[in-house]
Amino acid sequence: MNNEEFRRYGHDFIDWVADYFEQVEEYPVCSTVKPGEIKSALPAKPPVGGEPMKNIFADFQEIIMPGITHWQHPGWFAYFPANNSPASVLAELLTAGLGAQCMIWQTSPAATELEEVVMQWLGKMIGLPENISGVIQDTASTATLCALLTAREKATGFNSNRSGARLPLCVYASEEGHSSIDKAVKIAGYGIESLRHIPTDHNFALSAEELEKAIAEDKSRGLIPACVIGTLGTTSSAAVDPLAEIGEICRRHDLWFHVDAAYGGTAALLDEKRKVLEGAEMFDSFVFNPHKWMLTNFDCSAYFVKDEELLIRTFEIHPEYLKTGRDEEVKNYRDWGVQLGRRFRALKLWFVIRSYGVKGLQEIVREHLRLAGLFKEWVEEDSRFALLAPVNFSLVCFRLTKEGASEEELARLNAALLEKVNATGEVFMTHTSLKGRYAIRMAIGQRTTTEKHVRRAWDLISQSALTL
Amino acid sequence: MNNEEFRRYGHDFIDWVADYFEQVEEYPVCSTVKPGEIKSALPAKPPVGGEPMKNIFADFQEIIMPGITHWQHPGWFAYFPANNSPASVLAELLTAGLGAQCMIWQTSPAATELEEVVMQWLGKMIGLPENISGVIQDTASTATLCALLTAREKATGFNSNRSGARLPLCVYASEEGHSSIDKAVKIAGYGIESLRHIPTDHNFALSAEELEKAIAEDKSRGLIPACVIGTLGTTSSAAVDPLAEIGEICRRHDLWFHVDAAYGGTAALLDEKRKVLEGAEMFDSFVFNPHKWMLTNFDCSAYFVKDEELLIRTFEIHPEYLKTGRDEEVKNYRDWGVQLGRRFRALKLWFVIRSYGVKGLQEIVREHLRLAGLFKEWVEEDSRFALLAPVNFSLVCFRLTKEGASEEELARLNAALLEKVNATGEVFMTHTSLKGRYAIRMAIGQRTTTEKHVRRAWDLISQSALTL
Repeated sequence: MNNEEFRRYGHDFIDWVADYFEQVEEYPVCSTVKPGEIKSALPAKPPVGGEPMKNIFADFQEIIMPGITHWQHPGWFAYFPANNSPASVLAELLTAGLGAQCMIWQTSPAATELEEVVMQWLGKMIGLPENISGVIQDTASTATLCALLTAREKATGFNSNRSGARLPLCVYASEEGHSSIDKAVKIAGYGIESLRHIPTDHNFALSAEELEKAIAEDKSRGLIPACVIGTLGTTSSAAVDPLAEIGEICRRHDLWFHVDAAYGGTAALLDEKRKVLEGAEMFDSFVFNPHKWMLTNFDCSAYFVKDEELLIRTFEIHPEYLKTGRDEEVKNYRDWGVQLGRRFRALKLWFVIRSYGVKGLQEIVREHLRLAGLFKEWVEEDSRFALLAPVNFSLVCFRLTKEGASEEELARLNAALLEKVNATGEVFMTHTSLKGRYAIRMAIGQRTTTEKHVRRAWDLISQSALTL
Repeated sequence: MNNEEFRRYGHDFIDWVADYFEQVEEYPVCSTVKPGEIKSALPAKPPVGGEPMKNIFADFQEIIMPGITHWQHPGWFAYFPANNSPASVLAELLTAGLGAQCMIWQTSPAATELEEVVMQWLGKMIGLPENISGVIQDTASTATLCALLTAREKATGFNSNRSGARLPLCVYASEEGHSSIDKAVKIAGYGIESLRHIPTDHNFALSAEELEKAIAEDKSRGLIPACVIGTLGTTSSAAVDPLAEIGEICRRHDLWFHVDAAYGGTAALLDEKRKVLEGAEMFDSFVFNPHKWMLTNFDCSAYFVKDEELLIRTFEIHPEYLKTGRDEEVKNYRDWGVQLGRRFRALKLWFVIRSYGVKGLQEIVREHLRLAGLFKEWVEEDSRFALLAPVNFSLVCFRLTKEGASEEELARLNAALLEKVNATGEVFMTHTSLKGRYAIRMAIGQRTTTEKHVRRAWDLISQSALTL
């Protein structure tokens, strides 16, 4: 494929993406293919000779597209959103075209310095303290792993990096904390038995009292508390842990305080929601994902730390082949995380913030919160349904009720309702379990979702419930 | 920015990227900005209101571009390449436009199944055994971490995940092994003291004899050998460890055998180079990076395992909110690595393999090998210079010599030569240290590099050496 063909197909692809944005509602949100269907349409062997882009593009449309689940569909109410946006896609195109691998300052100074600047912008935008340092990670999973590793090193005087994770360190997170915490605790060599799933209150928020108790108990057994993870917007119900209390406890016991605000952090763009961050300023590390609710293409996870030296010391490597004459003067982000190689992710974040402006982003988030409030009202007004958790942000957890029904029956009933609603292809919702209760999650936050789509979702739910 | 603007700027950006491909030679390969220069050109605060794309694009060209180091420049001879290609950039555009987050099968069946298929293709293309499983990781750093974690779990009967990395496990890699091994050993809780840097022979390849000795010694001290990492193409000199011998040793001692072929793996596309993989078929895990030498935009690292169950068991998580009715029938790649969230990376790999065909990719790699052979000859024919390592692939390590000069003087001399050559902006090379000897690395492998560029590099070196 020569450059002229690239140019021609590039224009075609841009039009295709623009059309996709316009027509995405015509697709079923969640792909309806059966397991194995895509695989069986693909040849088992790679082609020997090159193929014209025309054929590849045709196969993309015919074979791949039916197997795509449309995260950019306004009827996307599943999981949390992973929004892109026109500005972000344009930046991704430039990033791909430049093809720069930004592991160190020298391999693209603009990538490093733009990352420094946009991370400072982001911190200001959500009201984080001054004098913090930011770095873009791929996902909150990786960011939380970074936090647990730095906590491990701090607790052991950097002896785990040296001699292995031998000490009986303990980690604390709410029982509603994200599964990536469990994963990272295992990866970092703490062992899952060292993770205390602290009970939550009726709002699904970590109980500070229970946390204190657990820390005291571990200490009395000769174990070493190392890190507490507070969540700002849990995955199941968007619960907010009492960050100020947790921060105080961490300060008192000299524990690492990591805040997982992967989803909820974006809400702090709004002055009226800024209070959710109360206490978060005591964090040692903080993560939130612009790739969820802030219109920046996945992957882009913003990781902030109070003390960059601890982070760097956890990860730094200095092989001769990576040394440059500038290493004392610049940031080399290779030492700020797990991976050596790094994409130029700051560009899309810069494009998004500038294209929307802080106000533009605030308006979108504010509207999503309003829509969640509306949906919550409809649930509350319909006696057939029950709200299962406070609506702190734009996630509504609810279910259909039935007098005298067991939990098992209710789970079956609501799973059937969910399946029926999702089968329309107009919307896609998912489920969770809240203290053993099956809950449908209505996660509003797709960039193009409007009141019309939320109303339609409610109508589908409400009507489907009649004929179950 | 509305969709019409997206369309208009999309076309502009495609033309810009196409022009960039045509004109990349006009830029200095390595950015010449000073530390802080880019940062000082950017405002300290984000804009309140949205800005037109016209302004953002203008700033991209005026502020960001001077700070870009051009990995796609045909004079790129630094590190290893990170190639993109027209087909790959087009696929990245579609991936960004779809914005699908492919953590599990349901969130885009096509992404999962295409990944399965292209990874099977890739395995076949480089002659890996049948019946292996593949997964795309972001980088070889992460893939090697995955290998070390699975090795840790296998060696401890999955007890490290449960109770922490408490046992004194040992890891073995050549002293020329990549820095990501050191990093991963620390992350996974082995501790760097558990990593044996096995001495290398005069070809910078791991000495199997020394490896045997180290294992025996550790065993006699009551330590537990867990994993050996063999490298196929080291970073400093592209050395090839004796994989067959290492494989035998691993089999005998029941150790995990991970092959780091991040750079060298691509050479196995060629029948005439396939022999470098000899013994690699004994691997438990194997990584190579299509994002280096195989024209697929960074990031795309191909990770293969013999026993997918061990990998999955190392990483699996099963929170209620991620369960689907299909989990027993499909692959959920979230359990195949560190991160939960996943981009649709298989698409670009599919586009590249189809657009070039196996033959097209082979031709490019073969030409790079030929060019490295030429360059090697020029070094050998010029008595002022010395070759410092065998040329196994497309990397040539050499330096200017000087009779009676100390190592220190030679390092200064060659650093000066390197700086002078790089200052022309026509080429970019880097350095390393080989058993204490300063070496200039001429890493050929940029997609658009031709004999002309390699000759020019040699002329610059040869002439610059005259006036040092």
